[in-house]
Amino acid sequence: MPTPPLAGGTAGPTHLRPLLDTVLTALHDGATRRNGPLPAGGPDTVTHHTRTTTGPVLPDHGTGPHHALRTLVTALTEGAADPAHPHCAAHLHTPPLALAAAADLAASALNPSMDSWDQAPAASALEADLTRTLATEIYPHTPHPDAVITTGGTEANQLALLLARERHGPLQTICAANAHHSITRATWLLGLPRPVVIPAPRGVMDPTALHDALTTLTGPLLVTATAGTTDTGRIDPLDHIADLTTTHGADLHIDAAYGGPLLLSPTHRHLLTGLHRAHTVTLDLHKLGWQPASAGILAVPDHHHLTPLHHHAPYLNADDDTEAGLPDLLGRSLRTTRRPDALKIAVTLQALGRDGLADLIDRTLTTAHHLADLIDQHPHLQLYARPTISTVLFRPTGTDDTHVATIRRTLLDQGHAVLGRAHADGRLWLKATLLNPHTTPEDHHRLLTLVTHTATRTRTTPAPAPRPAAPPAPRTPAPHTTTEGSNPR
Amino acid sequence: MPTPPLAGGTAGPTHLRPLLDTVLTALHDGATRRNGPLPAGGPDTVTHHTRTTTGPVLPDHGTGPHHALRTLVTALTEGAADPAHPHCAAHLHTPPLALAAAADLAASALNPSMDSWDQAPAASALEADLTRTLATEIYPHTPHPDAVITTGGTEANQLALLLARERHGPLQTICAANAHHSITRATWLLGLPRPVVIPAPRGVMDPTALHDALTTLTGPLLVTATAGTTDTGRIDPLDHIADLTTTHGADLHIDAAYGGPLLLSPTHRHLLTGLHRAHTVTLDLHKLGWQPASAGILAVPDHHHLTPLHHHAPYLNADDDTEAGLPDLLGRSLRTTRRPDALKIAVTLQALGRDGLADLIDRTLTTAHHLADLIDQHPHLQLYARPTISTVLFRPTGTDDTHVATIRRTLLDQGHAVLGRAHADGRLWLKATLLNPHTTPEDHHRLLTLVTHTATRTRTTPAPAPRPAAPPAPRTPAPHTTTEGSNPR
Repeated sequence: MPTPPLAGGTAGPTHLRPLLDTVLTALHDGATRRNGPLPAGGPDTVTHHTRTTTGPVLPDHGTGPHHALRTLVTALTEGAADPAHPHCAAHLHTPPLALAAAADLAASALNPSMDSWDQAPAASALEADLTRTLATEIYPHTPHPDAVITTGGTEANQLALLLARERHGPLQTICAANAHHSITRATWLLGLPRPVVIPAPRGVMDPTALHDALTTLTGPLLVTATAGTTDTGRIDPLDHIADLTTTHGADLHIDAAYGGPLLLSPTHRHLLTGLHRAHTVTLDLHKLGWQPASAGILAVPDHHHLTPLHHHAPYLNADDDTEAGLPDLLGRSLRTTRRPDALKIAVTLQALGRDGLADLIDRTLTTAHHLADLIDQHPHLQLYARPTISTVLFRPTGTDDTHVATIRRTLLDQGHAVLGRAHADGRLWLKATLLNPHTTPEDHHRLLTLVTHTATRTRTTPAPAPRPAAPPAPRTPAPHTTTEGSNPR
Repeated sequence: MPTPPLAGGTAGPTHLRPLLDTVLTALHDGATRRNGPLPAGGPDTVTHHTRTTTGPVLPDHGTGPHHALRTLVTALTEGAADPAHPHCAAHLHTPPLALAAAADLAASALNPSMDSWDQAPAASALEADLTRTLATEIYPHTPHPDAVITTGGTEANQLALLLARERHGPLQTICAANAHHSITRATWLLGLPRPVVIPAPRGVMDPTALHDALTTLTGPLLVTATAGTTDTGRIDPLDHIADLTTTHGADLHIDAAYGGPLLLSPTHRHLLTGLHRAHTVTLDLHKLGWQPASAGILAVPDHHHLTPLHHHAPYLNADDDTEAGLPDLLGRSLRTTRRPDALKIAVTLQALGRDGLADLIDRTLTTAHHLADLIDQHPHLQLYARPTISTVLFRPTGTDDTHVATIRRTLLDQGHAVLGRAHADGRLWLKATLLNPHTTPEDHHRLLTLVTHTATRTRTTPAPAPRPAAPPAPRTPAPHTTTEGSNPR
């Protein structure tokens, strides 16, 4: 076999083109074979099928680039839970925009590494522009806001707690029961005390309980609030919480991984009032920003707040190089080698602009309200609450939590829908996290029909006779999948 | 503007194709404009040029997908330090294979997230196959080796220290002066004592000093050894170190981020004798594996050793879902959302096979020996030592460290070459880290001519008259860039 060609250089595009043709064909063929939001059969079946169709990962003799790409990309696509399908709506798992995925190819081909200027001359300039731009959206009133790019909300939350630890020593974190699991995991990682967890009735932090905790606890404190919870999509009363932390001299971190992009919508940004009062803010653009993973951000009101991340490695940022003007990038992350996630984000922001992004955000939130309307009007479905962002919790009436969990797993096993689950008000709910701006009212109708039909078929205890509902068509051809190939609308 | 199309679904490839055409054109045009390994002018010039050509990151009205892709990808490419250019050889900054970059597009388009099965049905199966395959290469003698995928060696080293902390509590780390900076940074992150640093004469850990440290220190100990150091590419005496840690009851971690892939070369795998005796092994396939960042691995001899990473988040791995057979992925990383880096790695391994990978590795190590030969034979260059892997340290004769640093920065500023720097034996050396298997003897000749010519031009103190050397041609057209577009050869 000749030495395989590289992606870079002036010849790279020529070598990439036929390989990309193979990838695009495999993406299409795999999606056609799947013919739905995820493969049917459940984990054992899917794993077996994936393994038998892909063959050994490391054969003695290679199968060649086109064969390997065709085989593995087709298998991955056929076996994907594809967030571009309107019935794949379990998690904060976004369908990426085509333009963001295309931009990401350039990151892979050029492979700038963001740990030193001489690996990323233009990429580091672009990243600096992007992080300053995003930080200014969050902190419009401070002269030198800044941000670092992370692998996601989890790493951003870790960094927020790390910065607080470096400001104060081993401080006590306070979060509510609605906080992301990464807060507790970060305290474990960083050797900090476990968080004090205060109640979150109806899914938001209870300010009275926070006041009590701030009054009772001693020593340096960090409150972490959430703007867009994982379970219900609710936003804590940020401004009220900021009043309390200011009064009590506690630090405030806001995990706005989900809700943060609402800042870009004139219609919805009022939901984030008080965000700029936090010492640190987490933001994920691989949620309401339609980026391929990963595209996390941690923002701070002043670039000096990032000083604890500064780090010295003579081969990357020797003193005399830094003095001679070579930018020192190592303090922009705890990682060393680092992919230029700034590129796809910058391409998306520039291509869509403020108005285009606001339109995408507003459109997505509208789909969530529409789904909530349909559930509210449905005789056999119960809505948990009107959505704050784009998360809709619901459950069939007259059933129990075990059955709700069974409905979810049945939809997964049959390849009909990917719905999430959440506990709220002491009960288990089905969760639809809507991030696909192309979803239509017809998609919602079909989804709810799938749920009510599955509820009926899996019911083991007597229940009120359900209203007749159109059964979902068999897997092939399946009417609920006819919309899959139709984006954009 | 219509709602921008998504990358997924059956229609995704149709929407991606014209956008990818724009990206490929921009990659080509940017590389042609750069016309060398990196842009000339140094940081201020490159940053200014990048900013003025790209325009605002977040305009009020979007510029549209093709315009944004063309503008930003061209700027990123024109301003790249492109590791596909044979004179871009400073760091462990690999030129990605075209087939790996093409596979990575599918990861971006499908966006499986590796934190729950219902976001990554086939991707999680593929990742499990890949991690088991790689772990078995490292630990061929244990029944259940396993590995997790990381963002790179830095995260893998952090995890190794975290696992050791969870086994033993706040243990003492011992590393040599040649260890990667991430070891010390990980102890800081994890709240562990700073490492005890023992000498590394000639770039490798001194076993006598290790013996003394193991004899002197009390309490649980973790020794971290290195297989492929950043400065000289040397490999610590792994088997000897494993003997010492076994005798003294200390744990052993081996950072084989750079050297690990030598396992796949029958010619060179003997360099890693003893690797399998470590409790944890770090491996980066974005170094000697030609992957776009990132592609890190942490391997363990038994999958139970990863248990401390297990973590519970009811929305991702509820007990009844796990009991019902839904795989629990959350314990495979400290991250939550996680890109499927397994895909590009698996495509590369399957396409090339063992023999293809061995050929790439052997070819790359041969280029390093060839460069070392040329330096050894050169009257005005001094070679530090024969390369162990593919790192070659050298310096002009009769000069001082300040001048060596100036030569490196001058080559960078002029856009002629990206060379690294390393301190060894009390002096500063130029460092060529060779990872490009397409590099030819002619490329090496031109590189050394550039260095000697730059040394002459920047010399401020009298020195022996240099042998006449052909001056590098002016930046455009530049003879040293004629090879850029010629891969594969």
